[in-house]
Amino acid sequence: MDQLTDVLTAISHPSRRAIIGQLAAGPARFTDIAKPFDTALNAVTKHLKLLERAGLIERKKQGREVLISFRGEPLRQVAGWLHEYERFWNERLDQFEQYFTEKTGRKVRKR
Amino acid sequence: MDQLTDVLTAISHPSRRAIIGQLAAGPARFTDIAKPFDTALNAVTKHLKLLERAGLIERKKQGREVLISFRGEPLRQVAGWLHEYERFWNERLDQFEQYFTEKTGRKVRKR
Repeated sequence: MDQLTDVLTAISHPSRRAIIGQLAAGPARFTDIAKPFDTALNAVTKHLKLLERAGLIERKKQGREVLISFRGEPLRQVAGWLHEYERFWNERLDQFEQYFTEKTGRKVRKR
Repeated sequence: MDQLTDVLTAISHPSRRAIIGQLAAGPARFTDIAKPFDTALNAVTKHLKLLERAGLIERKKQGREVLISFRGEPLRQVAGWLHEYERFWNERLDQFEQYFTEKTGRKVRKR
């Protein structure tokens, strides 16, 4: 229903971001993805399921092997959501000006 | 330790994104934030704690009241992480070209 929630949940875990980082370099087999992790294969399977539900990975049969690859498309939704709040990152100077005005009763002179 | 994880976890829940949306319009009191939610106040308190841990909200005493306001700054980290994968959203055409070339042995003519 809510793909943005699925995508954000998927990328909220450091291990899943690490998997994305690995797959961004190219498709890989399950065993290659699991190798760097010191956890049970079960945990890796769970991470991949969350990534797949969010549409961030896909599996393709290639001969006898299954290759897992990264799909960046769903991240576009996150970028869209973030974009709505972009103006709040650049407001530090505005906040300083407001603080200055409140404290001193004077306006910050703009050039 | 890992602020990016805290921020992504905080924004991964629709209710917490709704709170951010509300606070982006201006600071509010706890009761105002809780009003639209049909859940126990307990749940709202938990949501606010996660937002606060991520640095996305702050509380300020104003006379007798406590006002809660939104801070956009931590979202900059999410934007930074996303930026690394931006090229993957715009690769659809490239992928189509590759597919076409593989299937037909011909290059897509570029204008």
